[in-house]
Amino acid sequence: MVRYRLQVEYDGGPFVGWQRQETGLGVQQIVEEAILAFSGESPRVFCAGRTDAGVHACGQVAHFDLQRADVSAKTVQGALNHHMKPHPVSIVHAEIVDEDFHARFSATEREYLFRILNRPARPALERGHVWWVPQPLDDRAMHDAAQVLVGKHDFTTFRATMCQAKSPLKTLDELTVTRVGTQAGEELHIKARARSFLHHQVRNMVGTLNLVGLGKWTSADLQAALDAKDRAAGGPTSPPDGLYLMRVGYDKI
Amino acid sequence: MVRYRLQVEYDGGPFVGWQRQETGLGVQQIVEEAILAFSGESPRVFCAGRTDAGVHACGQVAHFDLQRADVSAKTVQGALNHHMKPHPVSIVHAEIVDEDFHARFSATEREYLFRILNRPARPALERGHVWWVPQPLDDRAMHDAAQVLVGKHDFTTFRATMCQAKSPLKTLDELTVTRVGTQAGEELHIKARARSFLHHQVRNMVGTLNLVGLGKWTSADLQAALDAKDRAAGGPTSPPDGLYLMRVGYDKI
Repeated sequence: MVRYRLQVEYDGGPFVGWQRQETGLGVQQIVEEAILAFSGESPRVFCAGRTDAGVHACGQVAHFDLQRADVSAKTVQGALNHHMKPHPVSIVHAEIVDEDFHARFSATEREYLFRILNRPARPALERGHVWWVPQPLDDRAMHDAAQVLVGKHDFTTFRATMCQAKSPLKTLDELTVTRVGTQAGEELHIKARARSFLHHQVRNMVGTLNLVGLGKWTSADLQAALDAKDRAAGGPTSPPDGLYLMRVGYDKI
Repeated sequence: MVRYRLQVEYDGGPFVGWQRQETGLGVQQIVEEAILAFSGESPRVFCAGRTDAGVHACGQVAHFDLQRADVSAKTVQGALNHHMKPHPVSIVHAEIVDEDFHARFSATEREYLFRILNRPARPALERGHVWWVPQPLDDRAMHDAAQVLVGKHDFTTFRATMCQAKSPLKTLDELTVTRVGTQAGEELHIKARARSFLHHQVRNMVGTLNLVGLGKWTSADLQAALDAKDRAAGGPTSPPDGLYLMRVGYDKI
């Protein structure tokens, strides 16, 4: 048996999310069908972060096993990219790893990027790839307020009600807001880094920081919302369009 | 009569190009139909650079006239963006200008960006927005060779055979090749700036520079191709996917 580790890039737009679902096409299904097509085997593919519908990835990590032991990582990458061709899913990197590597359980860090297009005109080129906020956002106020959330907290306020995690306690290692000039105009880039996140945590934090950017909330309001430990005290969930799973970190063995 | 100047962003993917055509939808038609929808008038819209099918724009400039004189530039922008909503076309800026302003004939400079995704894996997130070249490209050799093309030359070698320009003489002010790390990986950015370009000139130059990047051509080969003044002596036309009209310059009046 050989275990393969993949780095997967995808446009979340056409998918119901990473996970296989009966309601539509998941990225997992695309990858699993491509594996079957080239190898004749049907292993399950495990990923580091089960992204929601519409959420993108540059650095999703996944793993799967093949019983036959004669396929190089390069062959796997080429074969998968060939068979997934009609879909916006691409294997950016593939390598053979030890059998004790697990894409989800071995991960020690996840990094997300959230892109807000902050200009009066709606997006044309980046449609589906950014959250469009036409009103001017105060990015410095957002960054300052974001620091309230950094550290170990009970994140119940920013946790989807359907979240299945055992505990709402998480340690947020980094949450930064920067304004950047891109090809398509002014964007805010929100970077969130932690060992792991609760369901919708990044989108709920971004939706709440947006209230700070609009001048409707202060840092103190954000602190009070966090302290309330109540989803109803938080801001709205941002749309998935601007969210990217950028990188998954693993301890060196 | 009031003349409006627009800055237009669009994803060229779904369109036959800027110009109205019977074979499909042009960006011009989208804008003209939106003007009719909100004003009841049917002016012709003139643009600075008639981009081909699949070519994108961040900074296309266009102008049109309205007979009624009571519509602010901000209202025009909002109304057009509303009526064009299903299409990836957006008015990024609108202003009222003098009647002697002409988007095409007043322009003194055009700047294009060409994006090459240079990695083994095909694009997922940037599909349709970059030209994918999987083989490693020597960006420094491409940049050095590109300098052969800068200046005033007979660009017949890089001119589409159907080009309608009176003269093949053009002055290329800038042609740079830079490798940049982007969200989606390694890209080559080729910037081309001139008063005006011949039909397919940028794509033909890029397709030829690609031969240099692959090590198949030298700077001397590029010089010989330019000197031949023969389209057959040049490299292939690159696909449109990576090309963006970034900016149009006008003299201050």
